[in-house]
Amino acid sequence: MMLDAGSGDLEIGFDVPALPGMSEADVLTPCLILDLDALERNLRRMGEFARAHGLRLRPHGKMHKSVDIARLQTTIGGATGLCCQKVSEAEVFVRGGITDVLVTNEVRDPVMIDRLAQLPRRGAKISVCVDDPANVGELAAAVERHDTTLGCLVEIDCGAGRCGVMDGPAALEIARAILAVPRLRFEGLQSYQGALQHLPTWSERQAAFAQALEITRAVADHLEANGVAVPLVTGGGTGSYPLEAASGLYGELQCGSYAFLDADYGRILDAEGRRLDCAGWENAMFLLTSVMSRRPGRAICDAGLKVQSADSGLPQVYGRADLRYVKWTDEHGVIEDPQDRLRIGDRLRLVPGHCDPTCNMHDWYVGLRGGRVEVLWPVSARGKSL
Amino acid sequence: MMLDAGSGDLEIGFDVPALPGMSEADVLTPCLILDLDALERNLRRMGEFARAHGLRLRPHGKMHKSVDIARLQTTIGGATGLCCQKVSEAEVFVRGGITDVLVTNEVRDPVMIDRLAQLPRRGAKISVCVDDPANVGELAAAVERHDTTLGCLVEIDCGAGRCGVMDGPAALEIARAILAVPRLRFEGLQSYQGALQHLPTWSERQAAFAQALEITRAVADHLEANGVAVPLVTGGGTGSYPLEAASGLYGELQCGSYAFLDADYGRILDAEGRRLDCAGWENAMFLLTSVMSRRPGRAICDAGLKVQSADSGLPQVYGRADLRYVKWTDEHGVIEDPQDRLRIGDRLRLVPGHCDPTCNMHDWYVGLRGGRVEVLWPVSARGKSL
Repeated sequence: MMLDAGSGDLEIGFDVPALPGMSEADVLTPCLILDLDALERNLRRMGEFARAHGLRLRPHGKMHKSVDIARLQTTIGGATGLCCQKVSEAEVFVRGGITDVLVTNEVRDPVMIDRLAQLPRRGAKISVCVDDPANVGELAAAVERHDTTLGCLVEIDCGAGRCGVMDGPAALEIARAILAVPRLRFEGLQSYQGALQHLPTWSERQAAFAQALEITRAVADHLEANGVAVPLVTGGGTGSYPLEAASGLYGELQCGSYAFLDADYGRILDAEGRRLDCAGWENAMFLLTSVMSRRPGRAICDAGLKVQSADSGLPQVYGRADLRYVKWTDEHGVIEDPQDRLRIGDRLRLVPGHCDPTCNMHDWYVGLRGGRVEVLWPVSARGKSL
Repeated sequence: MMLDAGSGDLEIGFDVPALPGMSEADVLTPCLILDLDALERNLRRMGEFARAHGLRLRPHGKMHKSVDIARLQTTIGGATGLCCQKVSEAEVFVRGGITDVLVTNEVRDPVMIDRLAQLPRRGAKISVCVDDPANVGELAAAVERHDTTLGCLVEIDCGAGRCGVMDGPAALEIARAILAVPRLRFEGLQSYQGALQHLPTWSERQAAFAQALEITRAVADHLEANGVAVPLVTGGGTGSYPLEAASGLYGELQCGSYAFLDADYGRILDAEGRRLDCAGWENAMFLLTSVMSRRPGRAICDAGLKVQSADSGLPQVYGRADLRYVKWTDEHGVIEDPQDRLRIGDRLRLVPGHCDPTCNMHDWYVGLRGGRVEVLWPVSARGKSL
């Protein structure tokens, strides 16, 4: 079956790259495809890891921005809740039926604080991070206005150099401010070291995590020493989760990229020196592209900068050691094909350098199983940046 | 006036960053804003340049992906038609009332060829590029099926190393194939050297253009010498348009970025050695961002990799020589603020490195005049990659 351009109604347009039942060779390109079997194996694997280590799993929805994948993480992947970064993402997930959402970020705009404070009225448990005592008052006023409650975690900057407080006294001041507001729940510490996730070797990540853990533990100890119990420390990513699990401090993992993998995470090495994409984690999301022009030694494909993020380098051509994606422009990619194997219309699976910002450029995930399109899932929170 | 989060209907969500009448300080961030006065001056300036040089102007809609801006280019900017790169973009522009659209790209997927061939039934003149004789037969069958006509241009690879043929005989074969199909119009040559546009100095671009011109002229001469008239050579960009205008060969300009400018085009030098953003062209599009966290010497803003393309380097903080955007992650930017001037909630205008792929990440343009929101324009063809 091929997508039929139809006989008439041009008003509608055809903005989906595929329909259920189609074969992969007929999917319109460029688009994101999912290997549903690999995705499900990744989700189950992390769920089992978390359970085996007595940890809660709260996967990061900022990566996939998909209500459908969030649900799958809950039903088969052991997730007890979801993370996201933006209030507008949280709104999408809550409308999609996710009932426990943590915004792992600060919310400072008055309008967005107001929207955040309304979300619990949808029957969802909502939490947010704080790194400034002044923000507690803003949140308190909003939950009062809407007769709701919010969970609050104090964010620790444990080395990424982004948001967050850096020491115990600063965290204590915020925690006490939260505890003083009945409608706010002090839920613990948010401590995610994003900058260490992509360090290539395990020993580099181990060393960076040791520093992050020391900072986080010092903050937790300072709070406890001052009579403030820390119910939870949450954080962790696909490059570091065994470290958080072994720390004895973290109670919850926030991994996101494990679901899809990407070229950048695929090449980092685990504790045994194996590439992550050869250590049980599978590439489950690909950028499908077609050859649209060719000449000796080279082909031009239809996937350029508008369908993948440039921040983590060029994509890899999956399963084709004979081909190399060597250059991108807005709508094109140049592929070295020294053996001249490619023909016009050939489909290639690219593994993008960085999954999160790549997914955010697309409207659809085309889910494949056994070479056929099984589902078409919207990238539900695509472009939700507010 | 501030955006009110409303009292009730959470189903709707609030996915617009602003409403007409708001002041810039209240616009939700991150989002794209337009300085409408600067935009209109840029549009008029290029229209006047083309008219003064006796050239047609067909601005590139792939840059802004906006029906509203395309219309403005027609009404005040001297445009006689529009370019785009994708059939799905062309559909949006035609539905939006643009009646002359050139797809400056090859279309090879059977479904997309079929959609392209249907578009003229909407009352629009549609043209497309070809770089393979086999493609002519595919297009011919589609226009026959739909009882329509298409314009065809032979694309020349004049140095960018992307699609296109490289010599006269190859172009002649395709031109003759086009001429043999009554429903296809041979409209001339598409010859755009994208790789030269961003070379920093005028003399570098001049040298690269001389090569491009030589290639293109040789192809045109070969066609004419073989009895095939070349009605038009079309191409040109914001970094090269005076060169095409002076060539005596080009009859149409396809500039796109001149409407907005970006950090990369802003810093290239014109023939007089002036930066383009100090030579009459104005930054008209900005990424508006807010400060959301801070510590001595540094602020964190809410604009990261999901709202701007990383391919052309970090953005510049517009009008603030005291500030420097030094690092991005998915949802955050780090700004050096050595004088500690920034406060939570402060708005900053960023000039993105590269406008085209940045605009494609957003749903809205917030058009400002005199510090107030005047219009909210959809990024009509955002994500249209098919």
